[in-house]
Amino acid sequence: MAKLRFGVIGWGYWGPKIARNLDSLPQASVAMVADLDERRLAPIHAHQPWIHTTTDVEELLHSDVDAVVVATPVKTHYRLAKEALLCGKHVLVEKPLTASVAEAEELVALAKEMNCVLMVGHTFEYSPAVNELRKLVQAGELGRIYCVETERLNLGLFRNDINVIWDLAPHDVSILLYLFGQLPEQVKVQAHAHLQANIHDIAHIDLGFADGMTSHIHVSWLHPCKVRRVTIIGDARMVVYDDTNPAEMIKVYNKGADVHADPVVSYRYGAITIPHIDWIEPLRLECEDFVNSILKGTSPRASGEVGVAVVRVLEAAQEALRQQAASMSVSVS
Amino acid sequence: MAKLRFGVIGWGYWGPKIARNLDSLPQASVAMVADLDERRLAPIHAHQPWIHTTTDVEELLHSDVDAVVVATPVKTHYRLAKEALLCGKHVLVEKPLTASVAEAEELVALAKEMNCVLMVGHTFEYSPAVNELRKLVQAGELGRIYCVETERLNLGLFRNDINVIWDLAPHDVSILLYLFGQLPEQVKVQAHAHLQANIHDIAHIDLGFADGMTSHIHVSWLHPCKVRRVTIIGDARMVVYDDTNPAEMIKVYNKGADVHADPVVSYRYGAITIPHIDWIEPLRLECEDFVNSILKGTSPRASGEVGVAVVRVLEAAQEALRQQAASMSVSVS
Amino acid sequence: MAKLRFGVIGWGYWGPKIARNLDSLPQASVAMVADLDERRLAPIHAHQPWIHTTTDVEELLHSDVDAVVVATPVKTHYRLAKEALLCGKHVLVEKPLTASVAEAEELVALAKEMNCVLMVGHTFEYSPAVNELRKLVQAGELGRIYCVETERLNLGLFRNDINVIWDLAPHDVSILLYLFGQLPEQVKVQAHAHLQANIHDIAHIDLGFADGMTSHIHVSWLHPCKVRRVTIIGDARMVVYDDTNPAEMIKVYNKGADVHADPVVSYRYGAITIPHIDWIEPLRLECEDFVNSILKGTSPRASGEVGVAVVRVLEAAQEALRQQAASMSVSVS
Amino acid sequence: MAKLRFGVIGWGYWGPKIARNLDSLPQASVAMVADLDERRLAPIHAHQPWIHTTTDVEELLHSDVDAVVVATPVKTHYRLAKEALLCGKHVLVEKPLTASVAEAEELVALAKEMNCVLMVGHTFEYSPAVNELRKLVQAGELGRIYCVETERLNLGLFRNDINVIWDLAPHDVSILLYLFGQLPEQVKVQAHAHLQANIHDIAHIDLGFADGMTSHIHVSWLHPCKVRRVTIIGDARMVVYDDTNPAEMIKVYNKGADVHADPVVSYRYGAITIPHIDWIEPLRLECEDFVNSILKGTSPRASGEVGVAVVRVLEAAQEALRQQAASMSVSVS
Repeated sequence: MAKLRFGVIGWGYWGPKIARNLDSLPQASVAMVADLDERRLAPIHAHQPWIHTTTDVEELLHSDVDAVVVATPVKTHYRLAKEALLCGKHVLVEKPLTASVAEAEELVALAKEMNCVLMVGHTFEYSPAVNELRKLVQAGELGRIYCVETERLNLGLFRNDINVIWDLAPHDVSILLYLFGQLPEQVKVQAHAHLQANIHDIAHIDLGFADGMTSHIHVSWLHPCKVRRVTIIGDARMVVYDDTNPAEMIKVYNKGADVHADPVVSYRYGAITIPHIDWIEPLRLECEDFVNSILKGTSPRASGEVGVAVVRVLEAAQEALRQQAASMSVSVS
Repeated sequence: MAKLRFGVIGWGYWGPKIARNLDSLPQASVAMVADLDERRLAPIHAHQPWIHTTTDVEELLHSDVDAVVVATPVKTHYRLAKEALLCGKHVLVEKPLTASVAEAEELVALAKEMNCVLMVGHTFEYSPAVNELRKLVQAGELGRIYCVETERLNLGLFRNDINVIWDLAPHDVSILLYLFGQLPEQVKVQAHAHLQANIHDIAHIDLGFADGMTSHIHVSWLHPCKVRRVTIIGDARMVVYDDTNPAEMIKVYNKGADVHADPVVSYRYGAITIPHIDWIEPLRLECEDFVNSILKGTSPRASGEVGVAVVRVLEAAQEALRQQAASMSVSVS
Repeated sequence: MAKLRFGVIGWGYWGPKIARNLDSLPQASVAMVADLDERRLAPIHAHQPWIHTTTDVEELLHSDVDAVVVATPVKTHYRLAKEALLCGKHVLVEKPLTASVAEAEELVALAKEMNCVLMVGHTFEYSPAVNELRKLVQAGELGRIYCVETERLNLGLFRNDINVIWDLAPHDVSILLYLFGQLPEQVKVQAHAHLQANIHDIAHIDLGFADGMTSHIHVSWLHPCKVRRVTIIGDARMVVYDDTNPAEMIKVYNKGADVHADPVVSYRYGAITIPHIDWIEPLRLECEDFVNSILKGTSPRASGEVGVAVVRVLEAAQEALRQQAASMSVSVS
Repeated sequence: MAKLRFGVIGWGYWGPKIARNLDSLPQASVAMVADLDERRLAPIHAHQPWIHTTTDVEELLHSDVDAVVVATPVKTHYRLAKEALLCGKHVLVEKPLTASVAEAEELVALAKEMNCVLMVGHTFEYSPAVNELRKLVQAGELGRIYCVETERLNLGLFRNDINVIWDLAPHDVSILLYLFGQLPEQVKVQAHAHLQANIHDIAHIDLGFADGMTSHIHVSWLHPCKVRRVTIIGDARMVVYDDTNPAEMIKVYNKGADVHADPVVSYRYGAITIPHIDWIEPLRLECEDFVNSILKGTSPRASGEVGVAVVRVLEAAQEALRQQAASMSVSVS
């Protein structure tokens, strides 16, 4: 069987990573790469001379590749993905899918019409640790969920085209939607632009869900330590998922507090369990899902629809941020 | 020289701790303890029979003790401290000083009138680690401060008389005011009451200061791990103070990001320094300050005025919380 | 019922700690303290004036106290404990019981003759964490034990009367004997005297047991970090007990290696479990055991016989150290 | 300029890693790979079809490659390296260089005679962290060195051709020789074979140096956690290098103990410093050194002579292990 041929648009951070993973799969090969910057393409000539490179994205879109990876700045996602779909290509777009819900919905409708796979690069949905969390949640191990706190902090990498919400929060929002399968109902934001005017670099996003669950997303480009943490507080158990600690990624705390009839709270303290996780590179699993979806005509886990849902939350957060500027806060008089 | 004689009102968590520290000082002795609950007083009879105990607070207030420690529920602070001052006693009140700014200001005025010392139990202002932080800030080692993040999380201890803001945030607010010497201008709050109706157990408080510095206080009774952390982000250096790690309490990160003329950010990475801290029990230093202030007629570090400032921020946070309930958040449609 | 009256000989590091714990028990009170150094006794006059103090140990030994705690330098243990037993007192001796097996055996025989309790201060046998370990071992959870590694390292406290083996290894040896209930058969030592001539400050002690289990004890006064760790390697599970990490003291690793018929080793990887440990101060439990043994006429857990066994291993280690100086090592030619 | 052409013998763990690094260098390319196992070569056909593969090592040795990498089991190092040198090839041999000093010395002499580069894969000599340690040692920052402790522990990977000393200790011995530039004078060993008869899986190696410095190497295949640690105890400062903690690899402790005239030891406690380390993959630097040595006719850092020195220590350790079996240890009677 002939291998599927892929074209990659954008050879910055994600492009080469996705290409390497696609190339390691038996049914896929990267045939073409496009980037506006000729210098980025030079190493390909040196080490992978069989890959065709171009600075003209139209050449790639109208070539005979079967599928296209869009790994470019967010504001170009919509235009490039749309054109690729119109050319009949299957498309994997880096997260977030687009810069607006309207754009995202249009892409989903177009992919359906063209009978093409549309997928978004929500890598964490393919993380074995996140899937272990999901099993715990869905098996009811944690009981009723009170709240989820996520932290994604580090020094840099600052962007000047989008703020920290659009840059980092797609990870956390996609994890939340994947774990719980429901959209939040309300979104509030506290955010600050310390380093670059009007480009917020620290944000606290507070989400309220229909069932009373709340979630708090803390993202920052301005922090001394790399933090990648998700804490889930259930009434039966609590879990901390620390993506920076490979030996102890998930800790399940069998502890909690119980409210009794009269105003008395009691505490339960039990063992901590650290499940063993068979690790597979999430990006590899993501690429496999893309390839399999194309070959079998099925919908990938991180489908266009999932991409729409995440953008819906980001757009609401952006609107909350806009209102915040105008809105009251209590003054300390 | 005769020792100063102290009376302690409230023999719960803080009362015995403060009493033990006062007793270890050469110029002080605990002469009397009052608590409404007779059973709490029993161990005193067994092990310290020379201390007079009573369930009648009036007996203590009108005894010949020189000074009074008020270690009772918050709502009683004002009344007990006021009466003690009217009896001419020096007074140390557990944090927060009172339940409102008006009450706190009245106590400060009364102490002045009665020529008595009024002090509030802001223990962290006496922590050697917090004082090391203060030296770093005041010496300009951190440069201009962008923001400060504090976290104070654990499972419990739930209260039913006050919410988590009034219970835990006094620590963080007093640290912030002590480090920077200025009140915030605005306060915003995102808080949730998961376990007990109307008693918020998780809160995120966002503070804005006149000079552009921001601060974020995260307090929670509903967390699997004990977290006591203050992170200060300066444009020259960043610091993490982790109160749960005695061997490495303060880490100074010589790293940062610099914005250049055009939209380019560059990063600096240097050494991490962990200063050696000569540890002395903060509560002992607090008790020493109280005794010395009485003996010398001076004002203690954690003076009534400082207590007013902290209550001012807490009261604004409570008002923001009240408004939040009514206010809009963006719905995810 | 009248309280048991205790006399404490030696008011250095351990004396006050044991006295405080004895005093907190309902059936015990500290009546007398002896120390050669008058200055050490001064704080007792100030804060506990009802305790009789003396620089004459004979006064204490011939007083009416029921039991004596010997918390003095090791070389005086035998003489003081012997005289106390001859005076008919129950005796708790700090670890190690004596400086030789012969002395220790004589004390055990004498205690029997005098019908007195003889106990040694092996605090770790009363640690809830060590008892959790013992339950795991005895329930067979770890399978067959290959080896046990212990580390007890820190900067200081250097002694000039005994070397690091007699100072720190009693803890590890008593833990090993308590966990496995058998003496080792052979002892080898690699030790070095870096700071003070002839007083070894770093030692590695290798123990061989009849059933093939081995153990390695690493003790040091010359290390930058405080390390208190016991690692047990079983063929079914492995355990790490880290006494410096209160939140995660014991980690049970469900992992291992299996040898198959031909020269192939396979690996098993499972979950890590951190049991919850209800913490009680080991020294308090030790003091309770002493008091109960006196009252009920029973033998305490850390009996004189157990003290003999530990000294037996220490004496063999000291002999191995003496031979080592003379013995060959391979030269790197 | 034409690229240097490399042949790689052995396509197990190290072969592909070295090949990938050589290929990333501008002056080098991997032209040929030999392995006895055809199945190991299959992925090369699929992904790097331009590399010639063979199961006949003679074909590779007599081909036109300029240099050969020997990444095979230890017992074959000598024979393969010798034949490669006789064919006039430059040779990089995985550590340890050979299974005996005599073999290693013969290779060094032969390389000189043939005017070829002979290098050994002591990767850690190229580690930026180890080089930071070396700077600290050589600048005298640590003062006089009392001792060095190294730990290299994990579950697996068990070998059946060599014991844990020959498998893991080459890393530690090469680090020690690189840091201090001197051979030890004596070697003692305590080792145990728990899992496979006669193949020791846990070893403690004690080294004595002419200047009084001692070193202790602990290597194990039978441990629940991955430990990669070097601790250097100097009389001025102490350092811990933890290879498993990328964010804080080297900690310099400004602390120590000082002996005074009479038997009194005092302690110094200062700051901990964590230097920033610019990380470069050590294997890449190793490959660069090999390529540059060939091109410039110079001697690489990890030269054949260094390889001889490491084998000298390993051989002495093996002899000490042999004698240990026969030698006395003190019995616990």
